[in-house]
Amino acid sequence: MKMIQKLKFIFEPKSVAIIGASKTPNKIGNVLLRNFLDTKFPGKVYAVNPKYEEVLGVKCYPSIKKINGPVDCVIIATPAQTVPAILTECAAKKVGGVIILSGGFEEVKRDDLAAQIREIAKKYEMPVVGPNCLGVFNPYTKVDSIFLPMYKLERPKPGGIAFVTQSGAVGSTVVDLTAYYGMGISKFISYGNATVLDESDYLEYLMNDKTTETIILYIEGAKDGRKLLQTMKKVNKIKPIVVLKAGKAAGGQAAARSHTGNIAGSYLAYQAAFKQAKVTEAEGIIEVFDFVKIFEQPRPKGNHIAVITNGGGIGVLATDHIENEGLVLAEFSEKTKNALQEILPEYGNVANPLDLVADAGVEAYAKAIDIMMDEPNIDALIIIVLTQTPPIDERIIHVLTKASDDRRKPIATISIGGTYTEVYRRILESKGVPSYNSPLSAVKAIDKLVKYANYQKQLK
Amino acid sequence: MKMIQKLKFIFEPKSVAIIGASKTPNKIGNVLLRNFLDTKFPGKVYAVNPKYEEVLGVKCYPSIKKINGPVDCVIIATPAQTVPAILTECAAKKVGGVIILSGGFEEVKRDDLAAQIREIAKKYEMPVVGPNCLGVFNPYTKVDSIFLPMYKLERPKPGGIAFVTQSGAVGSTVVDLTAYYGMGISKFISYGNATVLDESDYLEYLMNDKTTETIILYIEGAKDGRKLLQTMKKVNKIKPIVVLKAGKAAGGQAAARSHTGNIAGSYLAYQAAFKQAKVTEAEGIIEVFDFVKIFEQPRPKGNHIAVITNGGGIGVLATDHIENEGLVLAEFSEKTKNALQEILPEYGNVANPLDLVADAGVEAYAKAIDIMMDEPNIDALIIIVLTQTPPIDERIIHVLTKASDDRRKPIATISIGGTYTEVYRRILESKGVPSYNSPLSAVKAIDKLVKYANYQKQLK
Repeated sequence: MKMIQKLKFIFEPKSVAIIGASKTPNKIGNVLLRNFLDTKFPGKVYAVNPKYEEVLGVKCYPSIKKINGPVDCVIIATPAQTVPAILTECAAKKVGGVIILSGGFEEVKRDDLAAQIREIAKKYEMPVVGPNCLGVFNPYTKVDSIFLPMYKLERPKPGGIAFVTQSGAVGSTVVDLTAYYGMGISKFISYGNATVLDESDYLEYLMNDKTTETIILYIEGAKDGRKLLQTMKKVNKIKPIVVLKAGKAAGGQAAARSHTGNIAGSYLAYQAAFKQAKVTEAEGIIEVFDFVKIFEQPRPKGNHIAVITNGGGIGVLATDHIENEGLVLAEFSEKTKNALQEILPEYGNVANPLDLVADAGVEAYAKAIDIMMDEPNIDALIIIVLTQTPPIDERIIHVLTKASDDRRKPIATISIGGTYTEVYRRILESKGVPSYNSPLSAVKAIDKLVKYANYQKQLK
Repeated sequence: MKMIQKLKFIFEPKSVAIIGASKTPNKIGNVLLRNFLDTKFPGKVYAVNPKYEEVLGVKCYPSIKKINGPVDCVIIATPAQTVPAILTECAAKKVGGVIILSGGFEEVKRDDLAAQIREIAKKYEMPVVGPNCLGVFNPYTKVDSIFLPMYKLERPKPGGIAFVTQSGAVGSTVVDLTAYYGMGISKFISYGNATVLDESDYLEYLMNDKTTETIILYIEGAKDGRKLLQTMKKVNKIKPIVVLKAGKAAGGQAAARSHTGNIAGSYLAYQAAFKQAKVTEAEGIIEVFDFVKIFEQPRPKGNHIAVITNGGGIGVLATDHIENEGLVLAEFSEKTKNALQEILPEYGNVANPLDLVADAGVEAYAKAIDIMMDEPNIDALIIIVLTQTPPIDERIIHVLTKASDDRRKPIATISIGGTYTEVYRRILESKGVPSYNSPLSAVKAIDKLVKYANYQKQLK
């Protein structure tokens, strides 16, 4: 079996062993085991540490050798110099795959230790995630090597977004944000130094992963640039990849090198590769988020956008951004115009953006959306709802969820404000309705979706 | 007395009359009066409406004429065609100033009604805010004509930020966001059609307003471009202006015209004016926010930035943005390097960004910040705190507040995450510590502060 296929032992293990299980609160080996117990991982969990007889009520083994029965996934949280020997034991035990969380390898110039790991893994065709990483999280199977307490870092529900990240810090913050907004993920992979398997291998695995629909890739420096380009090309045709590249400038490259021991390389080369592979590049962490959620919407047929608003100024801003991104304001047919006129107040003008004005209630939104869903000249809808006006009540959530579930055209919603609005936006997100807190981010996201849809159309 | 000076009757009134006070819940004249009663406005509040004897327990007058004693500020919420007659009554009564909330003037081509308003106001030198606006809010005096319920739109505490906005929708969302983050404002002015007083007049007023330190201007189209340029130049020398221009492209201009009846004009001309006046231009609503909060920090001496982080990847991203914006990573003196080496773990490297690694606790941050505040080669500090790691506890808030209060160098903090992080960020913001949820926004903000500080230095 190929090493990549063997990753299923890591993502869907029936048994997990934690090497370095600890009784000391807040130590990695303690948080790890506690997380497995707290989430009621359905498989077997073994603690391994020669210092203890038991940890957190779980029997503790002196070494992996002493465990009876098979072990699918081993998580190592012991110092770097102990890792090669443990890995050899894992091979002898025929474990399915290994996650090495420990740091202290390439990033501190211990390439000798890294080479030993690579040698053992290749010899036994044993997949190894890491080292120097947070490992994996799969909400479907509850395998979770993110050694951060759950009360500080929420875990997202099952869903369609896979996240491959070289940096644990970037990864964990995105996981936390995903959970906050009630978005679902399929796999989280923090791969650190990529000593054995690299970013391309994980992309390859996710291409065939049934639960994955969209892939986020955070990368500082690729192990093999040519391989990455070819893999991105192949995978992005089937599932959209949103990439965030760090280590773009000289200082960033130096910082990246001391971080995971990888050379960031020329950003221009990466940028060219991203363009060639037609992957969606994000400028920052928040933009990754902005883009990924729009990819859960249906693909637009073209670039003609309609805007609905109850606040004139926000509509004006959205229009600026639409034109600036090279999108086009849709022109409405006479039939649509007449239908829209009927829901506007006497002094209202049918235009795009359609300003329902501050008096607009939930019904006006429902009707306007219905009319626009039927209009063939419109390819995507941007719906601005300022929740602060008195006529807008919580039924608007139903209207927007219905519009998002309609699936005839993609929608993006915009709401800006304080506590009331934030709670409302989180409810929308948890129902799969993309919600943005600025016109700029909504329009940029729609633009990326239009471009990707266009690319997919050309492939046919 | 000049009309602009008379604005003090609107911002600091001893008595307020609400024309169009209403018993119907959610009607503007109802929400308005309720807000004045709920916030315990310390002056007199009069209700005016010939239909009622009393509204919400307040005696109701058939007209402004019937009120005994002076009225400083009149708020009009009756249909457009009734406004000129009411304004004439206000003049006869010698009221200090008038806010017209009602729409139905230039924006629906009723320039005739607008002309009447202008004529009366000029004849009696009576300042008029609006029409077609939300009017004003001053948290110091509790005058508040924002006719949106307080449970939906929070009101910010008193502070130093003034906000002048052509759009009520943009204005109200920013007010809401300001309150959400616990930031303080000095004045909110939604001026709508600018029929009598325009954006330049308000800027002029705020220049001499003691509580105002920073000014936000949202503008679609200026009444008088040349006047705006001259005023911005004058005011921005003393107090930084952050401007958000809408109606940049053709579609946006059309939308702006039907919104407040003003012509947005060529964006290139505006952009040139902003550059000439050296005001800080924001690209979107969230950026306005990002920039304004950094202006509460001390002015940096130069553009050399130091970064502290406990998450390598986020440090790499920050570095990219620093170099991309034309800022420079500070080089540390030997003394600083030696001092920093002592707080790092054995395998840690002193570099910029300074990666304290995920094991770093609150003490490491406190020491690193202290050392960097003493380093003359550093002009500004970006402090990344990933709150998800176990060693970071709530004492970090004290450390960052102390760094922000130090006032020797400006700081910007970055934290990214879910519920836990969001609560923590709100606490920081409420203590005046600028907190960002992405490296990109923090770096852009610091860049704007550096540019403004540089400009102010040149003036000396």
